[in-house]
Amino acid sequence: MPNFRLTLEYDGTDFRGWQVQAGGERTVQGALEAAVERLTGSAVRVHGAGRTDSGVHAEGQVASVALETPPSIGDDAAAFQRALNGCLPPDVAVVDASVAAPDFHARFSARGKHYRYALWNSPVRAPLRARRTALVPQLLDLAAMRSAAAALRGRRDFASFQASGSHVESTVRTLTRLDVEGAPGAEIRFEVAADGFLRHMVRALVGTLVEVGRGRRPADSLAQVLAARDRAAAGPTAPARGLTLVRVDY
Amino acid sequence: MPNFRLTLEYDGTDFRGWQVQAGGERTVQGALEAAVERLTGSAVRVHGAGRTDSGVHAEGQVASVALETPPSIGDDAAAFQRALNGCLPPDVAVVDASVAAPDFHARFSARGKHYRYALWNSPVRAPLRARRTALVPQLLDLAAMRSAAAALRGRRDFASFQASGSHVESTVRTLTRLDVEGAPGAEIRFEVAADGFLRHMVRALVGTLVEVGRGRRPADSLAQVLAARDRAAAGPTAPARGLTLVRVDY
Repeated sequence: MPNFRLTLEYDGTDFRGWQVQAGGERTVQGALEAAVERLTGSAVRVHGAGRTDSGVHAEGQVASVALETPPSIGDDAAAFQRALNGCLPPDVAVVDASVAAPDFHARFSARGKHYRYALWNSPVRAPLRARRTALVPQLLDLAAMRSAAAALRGRRDFASFQASGSHVESTVRTLTRLDVEGAPGAEIRFEVAADGFLRHMVRALVGTLVEVGRGRRPADSLAQVLAARDRAAAGPTAPARGLTLVRVDY
Repeated sequence: MPNFRLTLEYDGTDFRGWQVQAGGERTVQGALEAAVERLTGSAVRVHGAGRTDSGVHAEGQVASVALETPPSIGDDAAAFQRALNGCLPPDVAVVDASVAAPDFHARFSARGKHYRYALWNSPVRAPLRARRTALVPQLLDLAAMRSAAAALRGRRDFASFQASGSHVESTVRTLTRLDVEGAPGAEIRFEVAADGFLRHMVRALVGTLVEVGRGRRPADSLAQVLAARDRAAAGPTAPARGLTLVRVDY
């Protein structure tokens, strides 16, 4: 029974996130499991590396699924990929597939993830970027944002940047990258990598840095925000549409 | 009565093209005229530089409109722009506005236009690019396409690249730019500029060059295609979704 590793690209706009939901909403996991079932005739669970929220996109989400494939596919990952892409809706595709070790699990084997968050920083909307960027009309002070970001890198307790009501064993993560790229008046991108992320963490980091960039919060206040270990100490959760899961590292 | 010059960006996916249609379909011109009417209370005609087809996008479409504005706007182009953007749907925006000379007409004053056509050249779909690119699964021979493109640049009779059933005085245009950029396996872009374009001309040029890139048509056959002055001599019309009106020159 081959254990497949699948890399997925999707436009999250019309999905209610990754995870299958009780109400039968349209989700990426649900679309993938339906495609697998249509191909193999059996219902299986597909595991994703990151449970992206409603509206969040992916260039490199990773999923794993162990299953009996039809004889025409066997352990031919490329054939499985082509067959799945023929069954999936247009807004999601398997962009790479391989046979993984039997114990490979997309979520538990992951050692790190890389997200990108994109803002359109202009008083004027950009319709061609609307699905992939959040609009921030006030021109931002990038130097202040970069200075603030420095205090967040490294091994920290990110409890202040976790969605309220979350329950995890530890809120300590190692942020290996938090770079602010681009220029005010155009697109600004946050490249964010860590060994793991708490729920809404990237969006809370971005929402807080945007407050710094707007002059509403001092650039040197982030150490205090971390120390508070309180979601209320940080800024708002930035909109989902700007977020893309770029890559998962194993 | 100020004569405004408006620069427009739109995602053409959900529009039935630029031009107002008898059946009341959703068009860019229609959305703009409705916004102007809502602001000023009077129905006016807005003229566009290029009548983009259903599904074609714009980063820099230009429109002109002469009208009596409310006293709160007068000839303040920035105020007019902000007010219009407040009335327009999310998939179209006025990205620049200025007061033009009284005789400025977006279409008749135009001296040239620049279009971009984008292909996703890979056997695997790219959902995040699906709205802006046409999919070509077979890897293309870019050297052959560039060689073929050379025969099309300059002052030529493009009758073979005009939608059948079109009636224009002259089918001669000067193609100042036709560059093929990118690489097989990824995104390929055609940058196309001319003093004017016939109906479907960019898409017919691209469809023909793609046939060259697939080895279905010799790279040195374009002079014959031009000489035929027959739409059937050229390749198919490439899909609208890959086309963007980048800029209009005056």
